[in-house]
Amino acid sequence: MRISGTHFRTIWPTESGTVRVIDQSLLPFEFVIKELETAAHAAHAIRSMVVRGAPLIGATAAYGMALAARSNPSDSNLAEAARNLQATRPTAINLTWALARMRGVLSAVQPSERVEVAFREAATICDADVEQCRSIGVHGLEIIRGLAKTDGRINILTHCNAGWLACVDWGTALAPVYLAHDAGIAVHVWVDETRPRNQGAALTAFELGAHGVPHTVIADNLGGHLMQRDQVDMVIVGSDRTTAGGDVCNKVGTYLKALAACDNGVPFYAALPVSSIDWSLQAGSAIPIEERAPEEVTHITGRGPSGRTETVRLVPESSTALNLAFDVTPARLVTGLITERGTCPASRAGLQRLYPELRAAE
Amino acid sequence: MRISGTHFRTIWPTESGTVRVIDQSLLPFEFVIKELETAAHAAHAIRSMVVRGAPLIGATAAYGMALAARSNPSDSNLAEAARNLQATRPTAINLTWALARMRGVLSAVQPSERVEVAFREAATICDADVEQCRSIGVHGLEIIRGLAKTDGRINILTHCNAGWLACVDWGTALAPVYLAHDAGIAVHVWVDETRPRNQGAALTAFELGAHGVPHTVIADNLGGHLMQRDQVDMVIVGSDRTTAGGDVCNKVGTYLKALAACDNGVPFYAALPVSSIDWSLQAGSAIPIEERAPEEVTHITGRGPSGRTETVRLVPESSTALNLAFDVTPARLVTGLITERGTCPASRAGLQRLYPELRAAE
Repeated sequence: MRISGTHFRTIWPTESGTVRVIDQSLLPFEFVIKELETAAHAAHAIRSMVVRGAPLIGATAAYGMALAARSNPSDSNLAEAARNLQATRPTAINLTWALARMRGVLSAVQPSERVEVAFREAATICDADVEQCRSIGVHGLEIIRGLAKTDGRINILTHCNAGWLACVDWGTALAPVYLAHDAGIAVHVWVDETRPRNQGAALTAFELGAHGVPHTVIADNLGGHLMQRDQVDMVIVGSDRTTAGGDVCNKVGTYLKALAACDNGVPFYAALPVSSIDWSLQAGSAIPIEERAPEEVTHITGRGPSGRTETVRLVPESSTALNLAFDVTPARLVTGLITERGTCPASRAGLQRLYPELRAAE
Repeated sequence: MRISGTHFRTIWPTESGTVRVIDQSLLPFEFVIKELETAAHAAHAIRSMVVRGAPLIGATAAYGMALAARSNPSDSNLAEAARNLQATRPTAINLTWALARMRGVLSAVQPSERVEVAFREAATICDADVEQCRSIGVHGLEIIRGLAKTDGRINILTHCNAGWLACVDWGTALAPVYLAHDAGIAVHVWVDETRPRNQGAALTAFELGAHGVPHTVIADNLGGHLMQRDQVDMVIVGSDRTTAGGDVCNKVGTYLKALAACDNGVPFYAALPVSSIDWSLQAGSAIPIEERAPEEVTHITGRGPSGRTETVRLVPESSTALNLAFDVTPARLVTGLITERGTCPASRAGLQRLYPELRAAE
């Protein structure tokens, strides 16, 4: 990704042994780099959504383990760090995946080697994510080419942010969009604002704008109407956890868009790397759904007239709110899953065909 | 309705010949009465959503014609006032209905009698609305009784505000809720915040709280998940225009909730007075959908930490937004229409059975 002409990833290590991330809680109005020095910093960055998005959560957890090893490489300290990192966000499977991978690698080497090994493994996870996202983009591009109208135009609706800000680079749902735009296809993106945290309005709009992709922000309520009026040719979303049966757990509201897509014959795709697949679950109803603070619903943060970030209250003082962050879209509503190995039906058989070596590991 | 112990309607005439309304653009944080002295004031109140809600828009347009007659009862002035009032909001059919009724009554009398006749007719429209809403409440209460669980509890989801703030009193969708609550049924309401203007978070939460009805504000994205998890027993919404075929045009996002209700076997009702029925249309796809300012999406207004009302920007300066205010829920997704004459299937046959005298007038 390029921001004002400079190439960035969303997370990278420094020469002094710390880790840096883009503070996404301040976007789109402020671009601030945040330094993580400890595993606790990494956990806080995940919980407070300084970093977010399933792949980036995994990458940050991996670097969190490296920071834990840097302060104390003992088994007990690494176990505690993994517990604390695991507790930050219950829904994203990448978190569990990255922590298990880091613990496996670290337990196989002596404490004295662990800092170096941990940073190397975290970097490998990040590089693999970048490569996977690029591959998702290539496979998604084929679908976009097939769905674009004869005049080359295509309207794609996306929910939340599954772009490069959600990953290390490229993005999952948006990687095909960037490749299509760069290939000269006239892509226009309908950006769901994605209440309550507005990752669409703040992050997806920011990164599409930075890349020059035409886009329009809409209230989450509008997508169904646009589909009824033939204004949406395709939906692409990310996935925080995909079950072996093809159910897609993603930002709350995804299910409603999948219903509307199905009702109007609009193709609905989820784009995801292998790390988001939970082979232990057949059905999405068993996925724990994160409950976040009601203040994310009762209040909202934006830029005030003075140019400063301000938080305003939206509901009466005496009213309460419920804030569940994800929902599950049943496989029957998903046209296909776009992965780094290609596109497959949202089903166990479909996933097994792409990942035969993981089938045995179930 | 009672606010802090005082009985209010949402609109009423004064002895000095003006009309007063509650300024709903300032709720829930400020309760301000606004005085309308001219038809232009009434038109501005409708356009700027000082008043909103299909029935109240009709009532305000009726009083707007009375204010026009007060300043100049000539045919030409009344025609111009009607044109200006009609242009304020294209979707709500009550506006057309109320203006046609006022013009019919006024054209039948001499200019010298028109002020008195106009205020009397506007008052009649308001009284009829109150009585219709109460009847909708009675019929809806029967449905709630039938759907309440054996322990008397029932969770009802509503979208936007179709309560007493949308009407002259009682409300349409919320009238059954108030009657059920008063009858001792343990009603709990899921309140969709209803972006972009947040009529749910601001108005529905305010009026349910004022009446003491337990409720929880949710992001518009959450309703589908709650239905999947059996947390919604019934949906009731209002209707800005109902076609003769039973399609329901209501606040944008209603269609998405109807899809989710259908997918999960949750009964989905629209509550509406006869004035919201457009007998000239069979299908909702022909209804003009109001496009409002993109700033309602790119910005949001709430109460800042200082206690003042503040508007903050949510999307990057370089991004645009589209703001369509309504969508159409096809009759096939509507379990029933609750009207002042009872509940009927969402179909031409169903509506004709309730309104046989209007059948001939088609």
